[in-house]
Amino acid sequence: MFELSKAAIHAWIRERRASYEARLRTLVEIPSISMDPSHHDDMQKCAAEAARMIQEFGGTAEVRQTKGFPCVTGAFVSDPKFPTVTIYNHLDVQPAGGPEWQREPFRMTIDGDRYYARGATDDKGPALTALYAARYARENGLPINVRFLWELEEEIGSPNFESFLSGAAAEVPTQSVLVSDTIWVKRGKPAVSAGLRGLQSATLTLETGSKDTHSGLTGGAARNPLTELAAVLAACVDAKTGKVKIPGFYDAVIKPTKEELAHFKASGFSVAAFKQAHGLKKLRTNDALDVMKRIWAEPTFEVHGIVGGYQGPGVKTAVPPRAEAKISMRLVPNQSPKKALALLTKHVKKLNPDVKIHAESGLEPYRGVTTGELAQAAVDAITFGFGTKPAFVREGGSIGAVVTMRKLLKAPVMFIGLSLPEHGYHAPNEYFDWGQVEGGVPAMVAYFAKIAQR
Amino acid sequence: MFELSKAAIHAWIRERRASYEARLRTLVEIPSISMDPSHHDDMQKCAAEAARMIQEFGGTAEVRQTKGFPCVTGAFVSDPKFPTVTIYNHLDVQPAGGPEWQREPFRMTIDGDRYYARGATDDKGPALTALYAARYARENGLPINVRFLWELEEEIGSPNFESFLSGAAAEVPTQSVLVSDTIWVKRGKPAVSAGLRGLQSATLTLETGSKDTHSGLTGGAARNPLTELAAVLAACVDAKTGKVKIPGFYDAVIKPTKEELAHFKASGFSVAAFKQAHGLKKLRTNDALDVMKRIWAEPTFEVHGIVGGYQGPGVKTAVPPRAEAKISMRLVPNQSPKKALALLTKHVKKLNPDVKIHAESGLEPYRGVTTGELAQAAVDAITFGFGTKPAFVREGGSIGAVVTMRKLLKAPVMFIGLSLPEHGYHAPNEYFDWGQVEGGVPAMVAYFAKIAQR
Repeated sequence: MFELSKAAIHAWIRERRASYEARLRTLVEIPSISMDPSHHDDMQKCAAEAARMIQEFGGTAEVRQTKGFPCVTGAFVSDPKFPTVTIYNHLDVQPAGGPEWQREPFRMTIDGDRYYARGATDDKGPALTALYAARYARENGLPINVRFLWELEEEIGSPNFESFLSGAAAEVPTQSVLVSDTIWVKRGKPAVSAGLRGLQSATLTLETGSKDTHSGLTGGAARNPLTELAAVLAACVDAKTGKVKIPGFYDAVIKPTKEELAHFKASGFSVAAFKQAHGLKKLRTNDALDVMKRIWAEPTFEVHGIVGGYQGPGVKTAVPPRAEAKISMRLVPNQSPKKALALLTKHVKKLNPDVKIHAESGLEPYRGVTTGELAQAAVDAITFGFGTKPAFVREGGSIGAVVTMRKLLKAPVMFIGLSLPEHGYHAPNEYFDWGQVEGGVPAMVAYFAKIAQR
Repeated sequence: MFELSKAAIHAWIRERRASYEARLRTLVEIPSISMDPSHHDDMQKCAAEAARMIQEFGGTAEVRQTKGFPCVTGAFVSDPKFPTVTIYNHLDVQPAGGPEWQREPFRMTIDGDRYYARGATDDKGPALTALYAARYARENGLPINVRFLWELEEEIGSPNFESFLSGAAAEVPTQSVLVSDTIWVKRGKPAVSAGLRGLQSATLTLETGSKDTHSGLTGGAARNPLTELAAVLAACVDAKTGKVKIPGFYDAVIKPTKEELAHFKASGFSVAAFKQAHGLKKLRTNDALDVMKRIWAEPTFEVHGIVGGYQGPGVKTAVPPRAEAKISMRLVPNQSPKKALALLTKHVKKLNPDVKIHAESGLEPYRGVTTGELAQAAVDAITFGFGTKPAFVREGGSIGAVVTMRKLLKAPVMFIGLSLPEHGYHAPNEYFDWGQVEGGVPAMVAYFAKIAQR
């Protein structure tokens, strides 16, 4: 008979700290950057290593190819009659490097309880934590089956996940889906996400010539693609307020309910801690509830980079032949990426018909639940693991796979996130910390135990 | 007694073609990029090689240090009683490289009559042409002294030229200043510039954070420096018309006279040839006179590059911590760089007080003459050298040294330019061609002969 004991789980995972660190090192030192075509081989290598780790723990695992990068599927099936929890994580990472990185991004540095490396917190550290929790459950006779779905295209919008899962879903009956790729309100204050923003990113390109020209010789008559793109961007968003100016953009937005706003207010969110964690000087607003609404429950239009022209020292006075703006829109329930893209396209084409729009994969926003048996199981599990009751918030980021899994696995998706704001998702000097592993393993085991009782 | 014979000069320069090419190769293969601090040693090397060439031709030459990069001064003084022509050129070049370059920018490729390399036409080829003309004059007993002023900071706005020349001007009495750094209307149609645009360039920087942040986690609340800079730029210039929106910007502008417009119309300028030479698809206007006014006689506001955020493949959805826009304003008589910078600063600070403005050196616009003995001498000299009468136009580019020389050398400045629009000032695949040397040497000798008769 399985007995849920925090002391026992703590003792077990502490004994395995060196093995956890070694496996984390193996994973983070493979630069599995899905966005960068030059890392094609690393994606396969990362998938193979991850599958091997599941097998080493006594599970079955496969690297399943898609039209893009593979998915790793794994399973600890003790008895087909037991209920099944499917755990989703992703093993691809954001690009990394540049002067802000104080350490090599793809070498793991251990500094006390901290594990520095790109991918440490997003999402390799949490993935491994879930794997250890599943191993504990299996070794200790918890009547549950655990399956793993480890994607390698999350950071590029999961373009092949839906077609992959629609083929594989039938093999993976599941009672509950657990996602561990979300972030706490702050250190010491866990969160359960009751929603995710969606995403539609795109590049806007404008070509007006074929080569750099001397601005003295052509300036005034020549079109300047940087100037024209700046005008388009300024007409898409009010830079001061963040208000999106694309006609119709807000039409489908569902505002958070009173109950949700009450959860936000009670979450322990602090503007000062938020600014500190992300290194932000001034925000668009200093009101805590307004900040929470903006990052969790309102859509955005962001410019992520403008390519074209001169990037070196000084001012090279050339009119460039082309320019590209990298933009994204975060979307909230019930906006749709397809509709947002159509509205953007219509608006941009009206502003400047020569701008070409290349869309990346769109991600649907997700609206979860804050009530019911599974939501309560997540709350209880986190409270068990960390000794603190989590807040119901929303996640401002996007996980494309969530909406797909809800649809194809026909099971509710719950979030037990282990990352902290200061861990630096997508930021330089990303890290993860041992305390989140030590609390995360018992939290997940507790969740499994609750599902096992159903 | 000196006799001006085109046939004799042609024969002389053709005999020296290989020596011209070897010297041009020596100069262009030194990457004397004044804008890039990593080329510090190349600047000194280029100055030393250039001084050596003047000495090899029998002149005196010195590399004179300034607070920045040196000036090369040289002289062929036959008799102090003879009149003196001072020839200005510059030996520094624009940055070069990138996928648009079909050849190594700092290796000279000879393709028939063409010499491909960064700096071939701007301005090392014309500088060498003037040196050969001076050598011809000296070897053939023309009663003239020729002095050289070769700057190495033209491409960064001549920040030290004025202080250098105010120290050196007394040693360099001169009757005429000749500048060979301007461009023809088109191949086969020479031009004499009766004015230059001035220039004020600057970087606008905005820092809102200390590191990249995940746009899902901070987007909506975090300020986006790219978005804010795009709004500032859009409020500085109408991207479609090119009209500058900075209040007071046009106040001092003197419109071209009727006579000047008549010269423009008669210049042989062709919109199709202009587009072809610069590889431009569509212009802001298709009216030839309007194009000429825009590039020669009207001021501009250009964006040359926007640094910050993600530049790699795909869309990395980070909100960057800082962004920088590289901009310039071309100025026309009687605008002043100082005033333009003050107006820009006031406008930008009002739009966004957090934007920091770092100004580069300002260059005054120059208004020359189209009548009088020296203007006629330039017209006659070019007609002699190339068999075609030049048009009086203006130069849309800026040469900071011109206003300084007019003031400190107390002598009129005339322009005998040898570059063609398709040579690609500041553009990839820059080249110069032999035909411009073969016509340029007799043109300059003819100009010397005219000054000698005064």
